[in-house]
Amino acid sequence: MPKKKYAIGVDLGGTSIKIGLVDEKGKIAEKVSIDSLANDGPKAVVSQIKKGIKQLLKKDGHKILGIGVGSPGTIRIKKGTVEDPPNFPGWGKIHLGNLIKKEFKVEVFVENDANAAAIGELIYGAGRKYENFIMITLGTGVGGGIIINKKIYRGEVGGAGELGHVTIDAEGVPCKCGSFGCVEAYIGSNYLIERVKTELQRVKKSILLELCGNNLDKLNPQIIHEAAERGDQFAGSVIIDTGKRLGYGLSNAVNIMDIATIIIGGGVAGFGELLFTSVEETLKSRVMKPFQSRVVVIPAKLKNEAGIKGASALVFYKS
Amino acid sequence: MPKKKYAIGVDLGGTSIKIGLVDEKGKIAEKVSIDSLANDGPKAVVSQIKKGIKQLLKKDGHKILGIGVGSPGTIRIKKGTVEDPPNFPGWGKIHLGNLIKKEFKVEVFVENDANAAAIGELIYGAGRKYENFIMITLGTGVGGGIIINKKIYRGEVGGAGELGHVTIDAEGVPCKCGSFGCVEAYIGSNYLIERVKTELQRVKKSILLELCGNNLDKLNPQIIHEAAERGDQFAGSVIIDTGKRLGYGLSNAVNIMDIATIIIGGGVAGFGELLFTSVEETLKSRVMKPFQSRVVVIPAKLKNEAGIKGASALVFYKS
Repeated sequence: MPKKKYAIGVDLGGTSIKIGLVDEKGKIAEKVSIDSLANDGPKAVVSQIKKGIKQLLKKDGHKILGIGVGSPGTIRIKKGTVEDPPNFPGWGKIHLGNLIKKEFKVEVFVENDANAAAIGELIYGAGRKYENFIMITLGTGVGGGIIINKKIYRGEVGGAGELGHVTIDAEGVPCKCGSFGCVEAYIGSNYLIERVKTELQRVKKSILLELCGNNLDKLNPQIIHEAAERGDQFAGSVIIDTGKRLGYGLSNAVNIMDIATIIIGGGVAGFGELLFTSVEETLKSRVMKPFQSRVVVIPAKLKNEAGIKGASALVFYKS
Repeated sequence: MPKKKYAIGVDLGGTSIKIGLVDEKGKIAEKVSIDSLANDGPKAVVSQIKKGIKQLLKKDGHKILGIGVGSPGTIRIKKGTVEDPPNFPGWGKIHLGNLIKKEFKVEVFVENDANAAAIGELIYGAGRKYENFIMITLGTGVGGGIIINKKIYRGEVGGAGELGHVTIDAEGVPCKCGSFGCVEAYIGSNYLIERVKTELQRVKKSILLELCGNNLDKLNPQIIHEAAERGDQFAGSVIIDTGKRLGYGLSNAVNIMDIATIIIGGGVAGFGELLFTSVEETLKSRVMKPFQSRVVVIPAKLKNEAGIKGASALVFYKS
């Protein structure tokens, strides 16, 4: 019987690094999670990545085919560099691919995290039956990946798909990217939570405060979803509004790309049905007429493991 | 000496149809212009197209390789159909390719007019030295064409590149496409002229009225440009504002596509330097950091003949 083939998938996040040993079918055999130490600068982060991979390799004796890394920031695919990832202070441009390759002597593929998630959905998840789709990941940041003819579309320097930084109100709120009115500046989870906190002060009736144990610092998307599920009108309106604003941004992407299948993943996607319906209705009412009937909005399948699986897919598929 | 090869290029507009006999190098040997009779419905329009082509063929005895048509609306390339072109009442979906082919028994290529303009610039114009660019045409409508790896990008059904219908203020002014705050709803020439007329009522000092011979119904982009050239502050601010709004929309396209070369054509592009500088400055201040230094905004080269040349290019290049 031929031995199973494994790859390492690294999901680099601002808070933690999740690393998994993944087989060709996308099954995670082992995984570890380790602090990313983003505030300590790139050296510390790279050292944490190496440490995590070593932990995993020690646990398991398998020989690996390669290492895939999904990272925030702009990635130059051929060079394996990572540029200015948001939430990673003092980063600049780092040759992440080379640094990892030096240590482990296997092929290393570095890809933007949202692109890696899109590749993961394409190969193992909700995107398997589609030729083209737009993947959007809703978390602290709002990221995007574009699949054209079953391949990731990277653009000129690997920066394509910045769907979180599509403006929906060009003279609107400032976004930390330097522009104004970006989708992320409204529905990125930190911005969203801050806005909800402010609005709660004028809303009389909501069980949100109660669900937070009277401590609004504990407010998160899960709690908003729970409140909405329990019939809280304010929480429901927050979710519908989130869907609307995401729909505004996505309608721009659909009108530009003529791709009408949207896959939504990431924490805020946990808002569920209410969110998806709001996005779909907004999109259908706003995209150009010939696209309207083709609009499909579906949830990502890989959930929490999307990052690891997408990153490992880079090794197997080299797409 | 081998005979020169010719194609017919048809530029279908809401007011007139321009048709040219074009050689392989993009030189127009003969051309005619004929009313489009758009208000009389699709039959009348198709009959005008045929009439125009016949006029041209009568003038000139050349055998033609094929006919290319640049048309507004959504085009299904393979079927040669034209769907719901704006400013063509009662249209629906017409098999324009077949109708023309039946008459002239040569290959017929139908393409969205902005895409045809982009192909024209790629092959004969300002896009020749670029692998990737975004073409934007500024007229009554605001159209777009996207070139990736020297080929037109059409999307799933041939509708990609609707850059005029990118929203820059999702809760802004209504656009006739059914959405709100679209770029076209601010800078499409009709909308633009109406806005200028309204604003002129509160502006005390402007030579615009004088340049129109005291008849604001004569106001057009050329007159606004002339006023600005003569130092009229209000006219200048209109042009700068147009560039800003276009820049807002284009920054969305750049962040989604990671393509940073922009070619601008069409009547409103006649606003000149002031417009181009405003677009470029807006773009550089708003696109994601790794794209900023790569932003290039240049005028189209083919000018008035872009439509005919782009359409004829479809025959020679079949791209």
